[in-house]
Amino acid sequence: MQEFFSTVPSRIPFEGLDSTNPLAFKVYDADRVVAGRTMAEHLRIAVCYWHSFNWPGSDVFGGGTFDRPWLDDPTSMDAARSKMDAAFEFMSKLGMPFWCFHDRDIAPEGDTFTETVANLESMVEYAEKKMADTGVQLLWGTANAFSHPRFAAGAATNPDPRVVAHAAAQVKHAMDATVRLGGQNYVLWGGREGYETLLNTDLGREAEQMARFLHMVVDYKKSIGFEGTLLIEPKPQEPTKHQYDYDSQSVAGFLARYDLEGEFKVNIEVNHATLAGHSFHHEVAYAVANGVFGSIDANRGDDQNGWDTDQFPNSVDELSLAMYEILKGGGFTTGGFNFDTKLRRQSVARDDLFHGHIGGIDTLARSLLVAETLVESGELAAAVDERYAGWDGELGRDIMSGATLASLAEKVGADNIDAAPTSGRQEALENVVNRAIWTTS
Amino acid sequence: MQEFFSTVPSRIPFEGLDSTNPLAFKVYDADRVVAGRTMAEHLRIAVCYWHSFNWPGSDVFGGGTFDRPWLDDPTSMDAARSKMDAAFEFMSKLGMPFWCFHDRDIAPEGDTFTETVANLESMVEYAEKKMADTGVQLLWGTANAFSHPRFAAGAATNPDPRVVAHAAAQVKHAMDATVRLGGQNYVLWGGREGYETLLNTDLGREAEQMARFLHMVVDYKKSIGFEGTLLIEPKPQEPTKHQYDYDSQSVAGFLARYDLEGEFKVNIEVNHATLAGHSFHHEVAYAVANGVFGSIDANRGDDQNGWDTDQFPNSVDELSLAMYEILKGGGFTTGGFNFDTKLRRQSVARDDLFHGHIGGIDTLARSLLVAETLVESGELAAAVDERYAGWDGELGRDIMSGATLASLAEKVGADNIDAAPTSGRQEALENVVNRAIWTTS
Amino acid sequence: MQEFFSTVPSRIPFEGLDSTNPLAFKVYDADRVVAGRTMAEHLRIAVCYWHSFNWPGSDVFGGGTFDRPWLDDPTSMDAARSKMDAAFEFMSKLGMPFWCFHDRDIAPEGDTFTETVANLESMVEYAEKKMADTGVQLLWGTANAFSHPRFAAGAATNPDPRVVAHAAAQVKHAMDATVRLGGQNYVLWGGREGYETLLNTDLGREAEQMARFLHMVVDYKKSIGFEGTLLIEPKPQEPTKHQYDYDSQSVAGFLARYDLEGEFKVNIEVNHATLAGHSFHHEVAYAVANGVFGSIDANRGDDQNGWDTDQFPNSVDELSLAMYEILKGGGFTTGGFNFDTKLRRQSVARDDLFHGHIGGIDTLARSLLVAETLVESGELAAAVDERYAGWDGELGRDIMSGATLASLAEKVGADNIDAAPTSGRQEALENVVNRAIWTTS
Amino acid sequence: MQEFFSTVPSRIPFEGLDSTNPLAFKVYDADRVVAGRTMAEHLRIAVCYWHSFNWPGSDVFGGGTFDRPWLDDPTSMDAARSKMDAAFEFMSKLGMPFWCFHDRDIAPEGDTFTETVANLESMVEYAEKKMADTGVQLLWGTANAFSHPRFAAGAATNPDPRVVAHAAAQVKHAMDATVRLGGQNYVLWGGREGYETLLNTDLGREAEQMARFLHMVVDYKKSIGFEGTLLIEPKPQEPTKHQYDYDSQSVAGFLARYDLEGEFKVNIEVNHATLAGHSFHHEVAYAVANGVFGSIDANRGDDQNGWDTDQFPNSVDELSLAMYEILKGGGFTTGGFNFDTKLRRQSVARDDLFHGHIGGIDTLARSLLVAETLVESGELAAAVDERYAGWDGELGRDIMSGATLASLAEKVGADNIDAAPTSGRQEALENVVNRAIWTTS
Repeated sequence: MQEFFSTVPSRIPFEGLDSTNPLAFKVYDADRVVAGRTMAEHLRIAVCYWHSFNWPGSDVFGGGTFDRPWLDDPTSMDAARSKMDAAFEFMSKLGMPFWCFHDRDIAPEGDTFTETVANLESMVEYAEKKMADTGVQLLWGTANAFSHPRFAAGAATNPDPRVVAHAAAQVKHAMDATVRLGGQNYVLWGGREGYETLLNTDLGREAEQMARFLHMVVDYKKSIGFEGTLLIEPKPQEPTKHQYDYDSQSVAGFLARYDLEGEFKVNIEVNHATLAGHSFHHEVAYAVANGVFGSIDANRGDDQNGWDTDQFPNSVDELSLAMYEILKGGGFTTGGFNFDTKLRRQSVARDDLFHGHIGGIDTLARSLLVAETLVESGELAAAVDERYAGWDGELGRDIMSGATLASLAEKVGADNIDAAPTSGRQEALENVVNRAIWTTS
Repeated sequence: MQEFFSTVPSRIPFEGLDSTNPLAFKVYDADRVVAGRTMAEHLRIAVCYWHSFNWPGSDVFGGGTFDRPWLDDPTSMDAARSKMDAAFEFMSKLGMPFWCFHDRDIAPEGDTFTETVANLESMVEYAEKKMADTGVQLLWGTANAFSHPRFAAGAATNPDPRVVAHAAAQVKHAMDATVRLGGQNYVLWGGREGYETLLNTDLGREAEQMARFLHMVVDYKKSIGFEGTLLIEPKPQEPTKHQYDYDSQSVAGFLARYDLEGEFKVNIEVNHATLAGHSFHHEVAYAVANGVFGSIDANRGDDQNGWDTDQFPNSVDELSLAMYEILKGGGFTTGGFNFDTKLRRQSVARDDLFHGHIGGIDTLARSLLVAETLVESGELAAAVDERYAGWDGELGRDIMSGATLASLAEKVGADNIDAAPTSGRQEALENVVNRAIWTTS
Repeated sequence: MQEFFSTVPSRIPFEGLDSTNPLAFKVYDADRVVAGRTMAEHLRIAVCYWHSFNWPGSDVFGGGTFDRPWLDDPTSMDAARSKMDAAFEFMSKLGMPFWCFHDRDIAPEGDTFTETVANLESMVEYAEKKMADTGVQLLWGTANAFSHPRFAAGAATNPDPRVVAHAAAQVKHAMDATVRLGGQNYVLWGGREGYETLLNTDLGREAEQMARFLHMVVDYKKSIGFEGTLLIEPKPQEPTKHQYDYDSQSVAGFLARYDLEGEFKVNIEVNHATLAGHSFHHEVAYAVANGVFGSIDANRGDDQNGWDTDQFPNSVDELSLAMYEILKGGGFTTGGFNFDTKLRRQSVARDDLFHGHIGGIDTLARSLLVAETLVESGELAAAVDERYAGWDGELGRDIMSGATLASLAEKVGADNIDAAPTSGRQEALENVVNRAIWTTS
Repeated sequence: MQEFFSTVPSRIPFEGLDSTNPLAFKVYDADRVVAGRTMAEHLRIAVCYWHSFNWPGSDVFGGGTFDRPWLDDPTSMDAARSKMDAAFEFMSKLGMPFWCFHDRDIAPEGDTFTETVANLESMVEYAEKKMADTGVQLLWGTANAFSHPRFAAGAATNPDPRVVAHAAAQVKHAMDATVRLGGQNYVLWGGREGYETLLNTDLGREAEQMARFLHMVVDYKKSIGFEGTLLIEPKPQEPTKHQYDYDSQSVAGFLARYDLEGEFKVNIEVNHATLAGHSFHHEVAYAVANGVFGSIDANRGDDQNGWDTDQFPNSVDELSLAMYEILKGGGFTTGGFNFDTKLRRQSVARDDLFHGHIGGIDTLARSLLVAETLVESGELAAAVDERYAGWDGELGRDIMSGATLASLAEKVGADNIDAAPTSGRQEALENVVNRAIWTTS
């Protein structure tokens, strides 16, 4: 079997992160115990198949730049096996515990649906052996129901029921593949579940279609006894102009409105949060507070332009507070941090894939250490508790149960109840966070 | 009584919209029948009190520039009456059927809550006479629970229950005032119901507070027999970094999750839609399709920077499709178009207020005519119907009731069910819209 | 020869723009005289080769959806000829006077540079015949120095001088091709002349490289006696994170700083203006006022997200004022309106290309009519003149020549010179524009 | 004299940055030597007068919330003196070496210009004593020519020459005040030098006015022998829709086009960079590479919405690379870091001003340490040098002097000169930066 990631090219002009092994982690240590679990147990890191092994380094203005011999013939099963060899070699050398995939990442479509299913099953079998050999586990699987031209107008929300049927069949097999590979979650990302123009779209009907599709997924999950978690991945737009699963709050509301509460959690992507006009911290805090926190697609956009660039996370400043919310919320159950990340198009060398992942993983590891400091010191939690302390008093309890606008108006009139603002202490609390970032190691 | 809007200053260098009366409407005609109702019945136009009569032309970089003598002493009741004289003189001369206000727009706070209530009641009485004299009706009232320093950290979602009690009392009196003046709706805009930083915020607790507050509002409405509509006004942020009532979908989801469905509709502001990353068309279409469409705050932001500039609407291109959705949805019941609009800071002349409103109202009127054309021609509706026609067939009906992922997978495998994409016809449909815009008059 | 655009498919569900000929213009009339020239002479419309004939309907999330048989084999010269047949058939049927192309749009690269040049020359010869047959003229040519992987780090500003040499050679041949085909302009768009990260970039050195390259272009133009116009196309970013030719003002400043003033004008793209944080109106007004106005790439982005979607222009509201500036500035000399526009990915039918162009061209035609109205009425110009009238007085003349801060301080102190703001009349002037838009036909 | 900042309120619920002295710096140490200078000499930190002492905590949706007794009577000279007492008490306790001010920050306008000048001179005299007493020096002074209604349409670019004269007189006196107080720079920020709408604006004329004004400033500087630096502060928009000094590149181009090169440098504000669609790193790198780097207004916006919130800098991730460019460029000469920063509106306690500044200053100090590490390791510089190494070879030298497009085309054809892309190493270089951030202390 060919070795794809042999040595670190000597042309790296600087001495990497470690002069003897430029590709070693500096912060991440799988066995280090943090807040009662090992780092590996906390972070549950996964490598994604699509960006790291399927993408050739193309963009809308130019072709592929990367050195990826396994991509030369995208339709052959031989190439699919080479790609899987490369992927498991990489994950193994990187020492990663998990991977994630779309059905079409690992196996090409055939001429008929039956042939497509056969291709997928063959590659699932191949993956099963690879996983056994390397110990890499499956964090989650999913179906790519957005790349093929048939899905140009959506999958579950396509105006043509034939496409919806096709998507349903595809999801059935992708769920089967996920279960067979021991996947801990199954993800639905509605890449084209939205619209390009309202001029040709019936919003109400498409919502009904989506709800129906999700109910079928839940029913199928139960019918096969899948014990993992179903995840919906919010994104506000792109490639569509508007995507229905806009953000975590939209998803939670949709679940409530269509009798699906408790059946799905969210898979939050950092860059999708920023596209939706939120901080990543917000999306995590919302999901934790509302019982829908599931898993994370770790990456970053570019603050300068807001685009969904899917770069590797590299800011402890950005991630520490999200990590703090996760830790406070009890951490992951079936979820984890999946590196839904792309190299920059100029990062053409094969070992750049190591640099990107190592930097991203160390960023998560360091953010975890900062979060532990923040949880253990308790300063943030104490400040919040003090701020809401009034709700333990008589007036607070009355407002939450019993009072009416009229009874409160009477009290306020009688006692001239009022309060001057007290400091929200934002700058001081930001200093508390920075102190943790600067002093934790 | 002083006349504030006497004549059209002769210094307007161009011949206005009509050489004999520069301030006349060119398109809006209250009595013209469009799609079965008069324009007045369709548009239900309101002038807002706050931007038009309370704001002196200041911004964060400079003081007031406007010629508004009634603003010289913001705390006196005499000035409050002068302001109301000016407002009703303007509305009357403009020929507008409705107005909208916040409690604090029309009456200053007193030294105690009781005095504040007395001030409000006195001004409500004054307004009652003005309305009787001029025939101007009240579209909606609301409480300003965001400007006073006590509300710096929110009203219903304030960490201090004393502030929540104060807000509840204020809303009670604002609802009473609205009812007394025959208001057709009562609006809740949560200006500071959100957060500045998650570091000092308990998201879960504040959601509970908000739900409790909304339930109190519903209960009070029922207790006093108010027959109008309760409206929530979505906005994603500003002045807060994140506002809970982010957009129509967030509001609809919140109502479902807290057992409030059917009790509130939304008051959609054009510029809030764009701040939330949506088109105004989207927000209206979502609200209509999901049964929460209530009323509109008509204005526009600046596409160049996305800010909430609250300028007068002036694009028929932007408004026609939203108007089409409203018309298709049956039009307003208790709602209407409220001009939540500010002059530009350099528009210092008093008659600029006429120019702004006339341009905005004519824009709405022309958009209504375009919408009528689109509804009557039926081309857009026919294109949508054809696009979803497959759902009337056997496969479509099966998917919506009865099918499972497994049954569909079997069918797709057996019959290789698939479909090539058909054209979404976006450009052709956009041409249909433009033809209506260009040829309707 | 195969006919690619045979008939209008009968499946168009609505009756198009004209029931007997769904593809006819409603507003554009080549021979109609407007403000002293025919519409054709004013607008000088061009079809672009790349989006309309080279792009298969792919995006970053999915493959090509379009029905374009000539794209099946992108490397063969036979396919290149078929594509050119299709292009000239389309332009001819649409009745367009001009086209634009990149060298690589019309001819594939060969195995060596010499072979690449031979391919280009062969296709230029083929184009020469097509142009003679159809009467379609060349508005401008350009070199694609951004799609091939060699240009990943830029062309003129590449860190590797071999790539710069290659780009120089390519531009030489692209200029030759443009001249041979009678092109009226030659365009430089620096697609990757910028950076992805400052970490590996020497800003100062790359500016020197770019200035040197532009000087070589100017020298070559003179050496071959090309009488047309050299154009630089500003764009702030994408695909790069930062592009050096950010906007018209940046280009004008660069030309001044590197002794290139007078040698280049700008080719302004609507969507690039909005990406740079400007209105299109601003970019045109700046270029006209500063003597660098050259040509236009007509398209639009999506206001909702600001992306460079290159949709067909469809808003008379957006284009009328830019057209007004062009008309006031004397109109195009060698430039024109090039349709740098893409169909939406769901517009898969071949005749959608007609719908897109017809809608866009009618939008320009209607905007031209509005601009004529605005120029002829003179209201806007009169308002501006009156606003600056004070500069004809003594104080104005003194300030512009002779005065010093000290002399002015003395005068202001002595006479307490001051002035209250006068109304900027923004809303009234917007009404003047809307009146022209609504009443011109 | 009243003490305004007496003790640290005991109500701070957490133990601040130092349990015995919650207000102490943790990183900033004035005397610590870094890269050959003390921290104080490198950072040259200034407190700004306007946000910290003039602003009451208001926003467009609500009034002042802060506890600032000296703001009770904004028009009295007594209050102006109290405010100055508070300001120097604060700066002194904070241990800051510099301050910055606008003329109107320190002295109210009088009824006439002469009275206004007298007020200013009186307060300058008062400041002179305060500075002598405390040792605080003046980094720069400037004129507020944007807040007063007279400047609604601009100062130097106002359509009314009387306003321009008034502004010129004001700038003359502000320059005099700056010189008298030993200011090291004089700043021009064109708050309203731009436009609200092009409909009433003559872009060409306003550019001439601005150039003329800047020439008068240069001439006056020379006439009084001021040895400091003249600075222009770029900002793209807000409060105007478009400001002429858009960014550093626009300013540099303007200076070149109007014969002003060498006379001005730029004062770069972090948040203005992001408003202009740039990273702060970019603006600094551009200014250093093009010889216009002058001074910094340190603050931050909010990445979530992009607004100009002027928050205290708190991200070492964001500032380290800008600091690296400054250090590589030789550091400040007359410039420094001015804290152009606002507390959040809920930070109502007087001691929040300490928390904000301490956090911000420590962020700068830590960024300086990181920059030193990066400069000393030389890894980034080495990677850049290697990337451009080809320019030292024959081909590189030929391209930069001597070659023509034709000669290069001949060479490329003969030798098939080409180059495959080499890795840009973005992720690896980002890891180098993060290693410095994570390990420096």
